[in-house]
Amino acid sequence: MPTYDAVYAQRGVFVCLEGGEGSGKSTQARLLADWLAERGLTAVLTREPGDTPVGAELRRIVLSPETGALAHRTEALLYAADKAEHVETVVLPALERDEVVVTDRYVDSTLAYQGAGRDLDVSEVEAVARWATRGLRPHLTVVLDLDPAQGHARFEGRDRIEGEPLEFFVRVRQAFLDMAAADPEHYLVVDARAEREAIAAQVRARLEPLLEPELESEQ
Amino acid sequence: MPTYDAVYAQRGVFVCLEGGEGSGKSTQARLLADWLAERGLTAVLTREPGDTPVGAELRRIVLSPETGALAHRTEALLYAADKAEHVETVVLPALERDEVVVTDRYVDSTLAYQGAGRDLDVSEVEAVARWATRGLRPHLTVVLDLDPAQGHARFEGRDRIEGEPLEFFVRVRQAFLDMAAADPEHYLVVDARAEREAIAAQVRARLEPLLEPELESEQ
Repeated sequence: MPTYDAVYAQRGVFVCLEGGEGSGKSTQARLLADWLAERGLTAVLTREPGDTPVGAELRRIVLSPETGALAHRTEALLYAADKAEHVETVVLPALERDEVVVTDRYVDSTLAYQGAGRDLDVSEVEAVARWATRGLRPHLTVVLDLDPAQGHARFEGRDRIEGEPLEFFVRVRQAFLDMAAADPEHYLVVDARAEREAIAAQVRARLEPLLEPELESEQ
Repeated sequence: MPTYDAVYAQRGVFVCLEGGEGSGKSTQARLLADWLAERGLTAVLTREPGDTPVGAELRRIVLSPETGALAHRTEALLYAADKAEHVETVVLPALERDEVVVTDRYVDSTLAYQGAGRDLDVSEVEAVARWATRGLRPHLTVVLDLDPAQGHARFEGRDRIEGEPLEFFVRVRQAFLDMAAADPEHYLVVDARAEREAIAAQVRARLEPLLEPELESEQ
């Protein structure tokens, strides 16, 4: 299955925060939303998996330890179903309204966790995820990079995914870094150990040029 | 996304019953299992969606009227996730044990209902479903053909899918007939209005040659 062409929304701004557990994605999402609000822009904070009614059920299925083992293809398809619903009912409508969508995780998480992290062919997992999301990509993906030995200890055993061994998270981290290195125009990698305000400043600096058409349209 | 190559199991026999609602699939599955048992063969009766723990949850989501509208890609991916789990944990293990698997619905239902029946590109829906099922195809698919105006009236409004208008089921029926016509070696179309014993006899006659290696291995 070939990779879909990348599609970037013509209206709105689509920002994604990626990174391992404990890397501070939620904090940065909140700081970003506050800053956007000060500038008079509407930010939609959202996440994958789980930010639609059916997504919430799928999130419970894929993350609950009670689910037990799932075939790897099953898991990848459940994440893809969550994404399809999320893009169709949350992300695209907000971009169409010219808003700024800030999502906590997107396709890269699927590629890192279900592809590089497991035994599936990552190009096939990507084809399914791109089909699910109509090829839509974020204008900017911020990777909050953290040594998994640090993030991992804080969350060990909390849910089904986070019960994976450390080596799994080492592969996931490398997958995020590789994706960022391959497309520097659309990625920003920041050290998640830095002060949260310092990280927020880096994100704002990188996002500012993308917002200019939005601000002009507000004036 | 290209279509996967067709894969036929080297062990066991994989039979699928397809057809609209009210076409008698469950009755024929039971008659077939009884006949196989008389011949000393183990039959595994199964169905899609829903015949795994996660599949049961997905079946509830896709069929419950409470779910409301789902994006068409979401729906296709949920069916694909059910199939992935079903093939990996039920179908392939039974075939590996040299058993006869009789499934009520398989990939053709996805192609007919989610592809031809909706607005998605059927070749893309097929690529996802083939990836989910590793390209595995039934040795024989029996299409229980019924004018949807007859089957439809009996089930109208019973669940979310069955609440579709009659035209939807007319397109679904044609999709099943087209698939059968394109691959006569692996399909049998029977008139679902015939007597149930007459239908069962047709199915047995067609299945018999496929069972010979199985019976030899039992002797």
